[in-house]
Amino acid sequence: MSPAFQSHNARTGEILPGEFHEATLQQVDAALRAAAAAFRPFRSTSVETRALFLERIAAGAEAVAEELIELADQETGLGRPRLPGELVRACNGARMFAAMLREGSWVDARIDTAIPDRKPAPKPDIRLMHRPVGPVVVFGASNFPFAISVIGSDTVAALAVGCPVVVKAHPAHPHTCERLASIVKAAARESGLPDGVFCMVHGRSHEVGSALVAHPAAEAVAFTGSLRGGRALFDVAAKRERPIPVYAEMGSLNPVFLLPGALSSRAEQIAEGFVASLTLGTGQFCTNPAMVLAQGGADLDFFLNEAGRRVAAVAPASMLHRGIHQAYEQGIHRIQALEEVLVTAKASGADPSRGQASAILFEADSEIYFKHQDVLREEVFGPSSVVLRCPEPAEMVRFAESMDGSLSATVHGTPADLEEYRELIDVLQTKVGRLVINGYPTGLEVCPSLHHGGPYPAATHSHFTSIGLGAYLRFVRPFCFQDVPESMLPEELQNSNPRGIWRMVNGVRTQATVG
Amino acid sequence: MSPAFQSHNARTGEILPGEFHEATLQQVDAALRAAAAAFRPFRSTSVETRALFLERIAAGAEAVAEELIELADQETGLGRPRLPGELVRACNGARMFAAMLREGSWVDARIDTAIPDRKPAPKPDIRLMHRPVGPVVVFGASNFPFAISVIGSDTVAALAVGCPVVVKAHPAHPHTCERLASIVKAAARESGLPDGVFCMVHGRSHEVGSALVAHPAAEAVAFTGSLRGGRALFDVAAKRERPIPVYAEMGSLNPVFLLPGALSSRAEQIAEGFVASLTLGTGQFCTNPAMVLAQGGADLDFFLNEAGRRVAAVAPASMLHRGIHQAYEQGIHRIQALEEVLVTAKASGADPSRGQASAILFEADSEIYFKHQDVLREEVFGPSSVVLRCPEPAEMVRFAESMDGSLSATVHGTPADLEEYRELIDVLQTKVGRLVINGYPTGLEVCPSLHHGGPYPAATHSHFTSIGLGAYLRFVRPFCFQDVPESMLPEELQNSNPRGIWRMVNGVRTQATVG
Repeated sequence: MSPAFQSHNARTGEILPGEFHEATLQQVDAALRAAAAAFRPFRSTSVETRALFLERIAAGAEAVAEELIELADQETGLGRPRLPGELVRACNGARMFAAMLREGSWVDARIDTAIPDRKPAPKPDIRLMHRPVGPVVVFGASNFPFAISVIGSDTVAALAVGCPVVVKAHPAHPHTCERLASIVKAAARESGLPDGVFCMVHGRSHEVGSALVAHPAAEAVAFTGSLRGGRALFDVAAKRERPIPVYAEMGSLNPVFLLPGALSSRAEQIAEGFVASLTLGTGQFCTNPAMVLAQGGADLDFFLNEAGRRVAAVAPASMLHRGIHQAYEQGIHRIQALEEVLVTAKASGADPSRGQASAILFEADSEIYFKHQDVLREEVFGPSSVVLRCPEPAEMVRFAESMDGSLSATVHGTPADLEEYRELIDVLQTKVGRLVINGYPTGLEVCPSLHHGGPYPAATHSHFTSIGLGAYLRFVRPFCFQDVPESMLPEELQNSNPRGIWRMVNGVRTQATVG
Repeated sequence: MSPAFQSHNARTGEILPGEFHEATLQQVDAALRAAAAAFRPFRSTSVETRALFLERIAAGAEAVAEELIELADQETGLGRPRLPGELVRACNGARMFAAMLREGSWVDARIDTAIPDRKPAPKPDIRLMHRPVGPVVVFGASNFPFAISVIGSDTVAALAVGCPVVVKAHPAHPHTCERLASIVKAAARESGLPDGVFCMVHGRSHEVGSALVAHPAAEAVAFTGSLRGGRALFDVAAKRERPIPVYAEMGSLNPVFLLPGALSSRAEQIAEGFVASLTLGTGQFCTNPAMVLAQGGADLDFFLNEAGRRVAAVAPASMLHRGIHQAYEQGIHRIQALEEVLVTAKASGADPSRGQASAILFEADSEIYFKHQDVLREEVFGPSSVVLRCPEPAEMVRFAESMDGSLSATVHGTPADLEEYRELIDVLQTKVGRLVINGYPTGLEVCPSLHHGGPYPAATHSHFTSIGLGAYLRFVRPFCFQDVPESMLPEELQNSNPRGIWRMVNGVRTQATVG
């Protein structure tokens, strides 16, 4: 019998009934073999079959929404209205990919027709479209038990395009994962799909994760979590005889720049929005604004006062699990240990025995950042942020030029500010995946235009997003058909364009038939 | 002074006048620093500036075409009509990307407009488009001194999207590289671009290549060459503190399947086309058909006889350089050393002192392949192919299921054959990047539908192509603008759609304006 572990109530720390077993290497192997065996039949299913499958997952989750929310609340402490809202987002995500399948243009079909009498050589008929890569291993995030977990963006994007999925259940919410997995399995059965299209294994150890990534049948990996965890999986995949991509989204500092005009005209309003963003979900967002830069002066002092007042008033809340709480405490202690960094404000009343975090706001001169980058470049996951007081505008550019890749950067500025700080905004665009003007980085809008990724370490591959419609691109590769008879081509590439999709035909975008 | 090396006449082995120096670490650093400094100005240039730059490269090469062809012929022995044809392809490639820039839809613009009064939270305005990743390091191929070298697909695709390029000159044709680099530099000057948009360094040692890939300013790497060379660079990049993608195209076996109906009705014609494909450019193509599978019997014997007769009559020709010739000789000796493998035919008259290769055709029972995969799975770069005699149709499926990733697979079959072998064709689609029916794998058609890549080891990342319009996708990443004022948005994302490009607006593809 492999080692067992239990799940805990996030608020009380109490052990929840029931236990889970570390997957053995045999179980990992069985899951990926089943996925590999299911791949060919699954990739040949119709888009309608897969769209219905996704809709059944969404409907299945909605049918037991209260039960799921209750389970997830016990295991994550995220509460209401967050969890009901997140479940809606997860179900909407499955339906978004179902709609994408039915619309059909996601395959990026391209057709270049033959010219048999071309000189000096005939031009062949060449057609291309996206096809699934094969079994995908999904590691969900602790902070999104619905939207980035068993039925989250990675899973539904992979299933949509015809990739079987093996999920590694998150050890911090295994009960929620089990319930969600049963919903996906039931949806697969109802859709007449082979069992291997979806499997889940449990594990707290690195060994289970490494074994999944190292397995010869795995073709791609999706991960959301810490830099250390993501990089470890990336390294395992890179060392394989046949390397596979690990799409890891690993969080970032998400710096916020407060430009002078904005700071002078609406510091209070920005402070309110900033603290709400910083402390949303107890600060447990990948897009949490962990650093703020502004020119020193009375306006910044006023902002610090306003923001500090609000941070001090934040009610303590339990973090997702004790490990995250401990890491948060260690992270803020590392910052507090720097004597040049001051604590602007700290929320009171947190009970460490209940895993509760105190929101905290630090301030320092920007030179301290450059002196202590070893500490201050590192993300502290939780409701903590450091305000850097810059002596001059050029210092913000210097920060931007030296910063690590980040999911987002936010700039608050009047039109005149934005004009004056064009260089800063230009540099930021080479460092992040998303630029937010006069808003806040948390709260992702899931839509075709969203990009949730960015230069390393925000993500391991900046071309891909883990959230939004583009998330499926990680799990497809273009496939090229040369002189393949019409009857053997997928519908999407047939002359008659039976699905009426958008295609590029001889260089021109069209929904028309060919010939 | 760093170590010097010379170039050689590919046919005679004579040293060509002039010498080249291994780039020092300082030179590598200077090249990448210059590229990094040029990135921000270069990415801000208009598409028209970059289109003109590409066209000047093409025009510059065409203006000295005879000189380039003469140089390349000395250094590669590829001769005419191959080299003039390849130069045309390279110049067409530059112009294809210029046309792509002017058309403009390559940025994959997406717009989701705001809904300020949405409940429970306002919907922000989100817009997305492709932006360049930064400095790209290009390693050209020995076998394409024009089309996959200094002015080849990798370089022009990267320059098109606004990525500065540092080329590592191929040590087997450094004179050709120097001449081409001077053309690119002149085009950059004429276009008013900073010098750092294009640099070239020389080197034969692994150290130069590794230093380029390890340099902190490098953002992506393109490589075409051997599995060993590509994997070495991949490993360097994966071990960086900040890993970067290495897009390596590393060749493959490109198996050809001869189905019974085709073999019985047109074995002679297939043999003619096959031998032409096998020996084109002295077999020095990544898509060279290095393995043939067919059911044993009289039809296959007839094919072997016809193909063997043609292989025996192939005139000897010098390979690209002595190193490749030596590797070819070693590769065919490894195969010949297997006693169960017979030499069907071998061309005579090759003069090893002139680096000349003899085309060779082997035959063996398919079980020998499974017994000696250590030898037979490995690509032998040159005009060598092994015909595997299969005892039954299922053996071809077994081969396909066990084969490594490959750039292409080719199937010759009558309509009835293709119907009967659907399973084989289905399995092949999970293993290769391009399926060719009743044709030959060599001779790429450069167009939007082409995919030149495939599962590892054909390429390090199966989502990307190194040839064709899609080649630029390796050098861009999506960038997301949230609530960014119209005046600060790139033209491609402005409401008025001033460039008239195709965009996805609120989920619908359109060339229309917004609002």
